[in-house]
Amino acid sequence: MTAAPPRPLDQRRRDTLARFEADIDTWVATADAGGTATLVPLSYLWDGTTFTLATREDSPTGRNLTTSGRARLAIGTTRDVVLVDGTVETMTLETVPGELADAFGARHWDARLSRHRYAYYRVTPVRVQAWREENELVGRTIMRDGRWLA
Amino acid sequence: MTAAPPRPLDQRRRDTLARFEADIDTWVATADAGGTATLVPLSYLWDGTTFTLATREDSPTGRNLTTSGRARLAIGTTRDVVLVDGTVETMTLETVPGELADAFGARHWDARLSRHRYAYYRVTPVRVQAWREENELVGRTIMRDGRWLA
Repeated sequence: MTAAPPRPLDQRRRDTLARFEADIDTWVATADAGGTATLVPLSYLWDGTTFTLATREDSPTGRNLTTSGRARLAIGTTRDVVLVDGTVETMTLETVPGELADAFGARHWDARLSRHRYAYYRVTPVRVQAWREENELVGRTIMRDGRWLA
Repeated sequence: MTAAPPRPLDQRRRDTLARFEADIDTWVATADAGGTATLVPLSYLWDGTTFTLATREDSPTGRNLTTSGRARLAIGTTRDVVLVDGTVETMTLETVPGELADAFGARHWDARLSRHRYAYYRVTPVRVQAWREENELVGRTIMRDGRWLA
């Protein structure tokens, strides 16, 4: 099997942004202070700059997002990978902007109406890596320190 | 959209084992002692009881697997989820059994021949959770304390 030639940086960025727009779910990895990792799938809302997630406030992932203020997201597939390292701002039911919760609800479901107590988490990308096959490992970093590489 | 009815426990176990056999890659979440999570896709070899992974010994994931002795794997998709919490045994190039490295090489590639120094990691499942949609969240635990639930 011949791999496709490696994509140049600007194409990786375009493909990545198109995927952020089109996809619905992401894998979310977090860790607690003791060094235990969690990994769960969550739906996200992408606004062009940040991701918004929602999960139960008292879940391991919810607690880790708030306590560590960090997450790593994986979007796509294991053969068309986008990894996002981001900082996290927690928004409780009392502090989430109504229009943000409305937009999340329009795309997914209204987490405010759950019988469990949910919170919202805004993830701001700091580093983004994108690759398909082995031959794209070189040049996989397309955002560093919060800036898309040029 | 009407969701399929929730699968009973024995069907989830059969579906899960069939997926372990058929799939090639897994998402691997680990954490370091400071509480930073990593998340990467890796190819795996399933022998019916354990997963074998291979990655660069000096990568963040390689170091975390060895230091923490734990990993969480996600196999499948965000809408057909299998999560595996496992314990990890590290096998260096000097200690990996030749037949295991051969079997891994036959399915994927021979990590012993890499110009980087790889190690192999045997992941033994301790807890397994499997669900497709919301209606399968109840009953998602199908292995606990290393035993398939009956």
